[in-house]
Amino acid sequence: MGAQVETLKHLSEEYRELNGTHIEILDEPPSALEFSRLIHKSRPVVIKGYKPVNAANLWTNEYLANKLGEQEISIAVTPNGQADAVTQGPNGQLYFVEPLVEKMTMSAFLSHISEGEYHPATTDVCYLQSQNGNLFSSDYFHGNANDCPSEFEPLRSDILSEITWCSDALGRSPDAVNIWIGDSRSITSIHSDPYENIYTVIRGAKYFTLLPPTDSWSLRERSYPHAIYTRSESTADLQITPSNAPAVRWSSITEPHVPGRLPPEIQPIHVTLYPGDTLYLPVGWWHHVRQAKELTVALNWWYDAEMQGMSWVWLNFLRGSRDVPPGN
Amino acid sequence: MGAQVETLKHLSEEYRELNGTHIEILDEPPSALEFSRLIHKSRPVVIKGYKPVNAANLWTNEYLANKLGEQEISIAVTPNGQADAVTQGPNGQLYFVEPLVEKMTMSAFLSHISEGEYHPATTDVCYLQSQNGNLFSSDYFHGNANDCPSEFEPLRSDILSEITWCSDALGRSPDAVNIWIGDSRSITSIHSDPYENIYTVIRGAKYFTLLPPTDSWSLRERSYPHAIYTRSESTADLQITPSNAPAVRWSSITEPHVPGRLPPEIQPIHVTLYPGDTLYLPVGWWHHVRQAKELTVALNWWYDAEMQGMSWVWLNFLRGSRDVPPGN
Repeated sequence: MGAQVETLKHLSEEYRELNGTHIEILDEPPSALEFSRLIHKSRPVVIKGYKPVNAANLWTNEYLANKLGEQEISIAVTPNGQADAVTQGPNGQLYFVEPLVEKMTMSAFLSHISEGEYHPATTDVCYLQSQNGNLFSSDYFHGNANDCPSEFEPLRSDILSEITWCSDALGRSPDAVNIWIGDSRSITSIHSDPYENIYTVIRGAKYFTLLPPTDSWSLRERSYPHAIYTRSESTADLQITPSNAPAVRWSSITEPHVPGRLPPEIQPIHVTLYPGDTLYLPVGWWHHVRQAKELTVALNWWYDAEMQGMSWVWLNFLRGSRDVPPGN
Repeated sequence: MGAQVETLKHLSEEYRELNGTHIEILDEPPSALEFSRLIHKSRPVVIKGYKPVNAANLWTNEYLANKLGEQEISIAVTPNGQADAVTQGPNGQLYFVEPLVEKMTMSAFLSHISEGEYHPATTDVCYLQSQNGNLFSSDYFHGNANDCPSEFEPLRSDILSEITWCSDALGRSPDAVNIWIGDSRSITSIHSDPYENIYTVIRGAKYFTLLPPTDSWSLRERSYPHAIYTRSESTADLQITPSNAPAVRWSSITEPHVPGRLPPEIQPIHVTLYPGDTLYLPVGWWHHVRQAKELTVALNWWYDAEMQGMSWVWLNFLRGSRDVPPGN
């Protein structure tokens, strides 16, 4: 089915007229019932003063390095800080490129971020963004919790595995809980997730650029061949290596936060999160994420979205045609 | 904007595939939090064993007649039991016809329903369906409760003005609470309301035929000139009298409960409510309502729907083109 772009533009306009571009800020965490109403509205909300981490100022570089010791952790490495992003390959072709994942200790990772010590000869950018439930995975909640190792196991006792008011509102446990550590060199390209997302900042700052699902049409999704960064055996440089994985549908707008990159009628919502700030990012909302210059530590809890009712049908519809043209 | 019927059919099919045509039955009233989740799903639910009326078996004909005494109440009178319905006028033209509203005592009304004593010479059908917050109106909840008379004031103390779990889930009081009394001669044509609706049966039975908002396209809405039943001064017969009110957009399907009247892919949900059964009918759901042969008494609580978020945009979109062709 090819939904007409004119129809999608019209819905986008109606949505904007009805909802504006402001977002609500709560001075304290909502009750489960209040949060359930917010989920129904499906608008982003910033929550102040919620502390899902035990003594957040505990997480100094020294503490993190000591706590994890010799444990190797998975780090995304790219030459430009753009993991999971559309990038031009050496042949001029645009690819959706996944990062190289390398294992290192927390200590080595933090030294690299702080002082560029990882591969001193290169400008490789490291980002802890494994996002596979690296703290608590679906199996942890739904299977045998004792049988779910985590690279970050020693940090588990510092954080809440569940956001009580969110779990109670949705009537389920999270699907994944992740820790993210990086700095301004790492950028997350604009995308949407099939999850309700609770995102909290522990150190540094995160800059979100948000668009509602009704603005999907403006992101001009295209189909890109899949590639991955690999390290050259001879030069140790990172290089884009096409893979056999299926092509990836992704937005062709790489800098939606820069004025003029989106159609003039689109009004992205800009949200900055500082330590102690928590963002509720509803299912299907598009987000582009940058970080402060200083080391930025964040956590997120992903919850499966409600599949019954209309939400899922709408989100699919708003993505437009199932067949998108190739990117070039 | 003319949303393509093919697009609407596709959404209708996707919705049906994802949600099926069953509805949930709860053995006891939900908590506010559970109900908030149900509102988010926006699927009809039948709730057993909820008693928003004090001693429902109190409401015998005798009790109702005695309680209301000489108070005159507003009764919809039609020749065919179809108030607010598309009906052919004497000139062959189809009209959207509103009932004649006549005032009578509860005793006279009940006698007419039970024994046809109202206008013995005619077959006029009487239905208590004033649906203007006849028990508790918006002003009652939002203004000065003492300054809101009701034709049914003596019955107020028998019922709950608010459904606690619904008010708490939505964070607001009802917009209107209504009492309905009729029998199988009165039928409500298929329509949808901009309200979340809690509907409970006290006596008799109600037969609902339900369609989700995604099936709007199948109801073939048309534009009908407005008319009202008036009583002839000479013969006392009811006659269709065109009015100057704007044309009314209404479904041209008058018997959606009869097999074969809707397109074959549409699968209406049939729900029968007996005394003690309560239906949650979500905003925008289409409903056609019939009643048992015996006297049927029901109550409903309308709550304003959430206007923020996407629901309202979708409901408008699913109605299709703003300009519908004239009915004939």
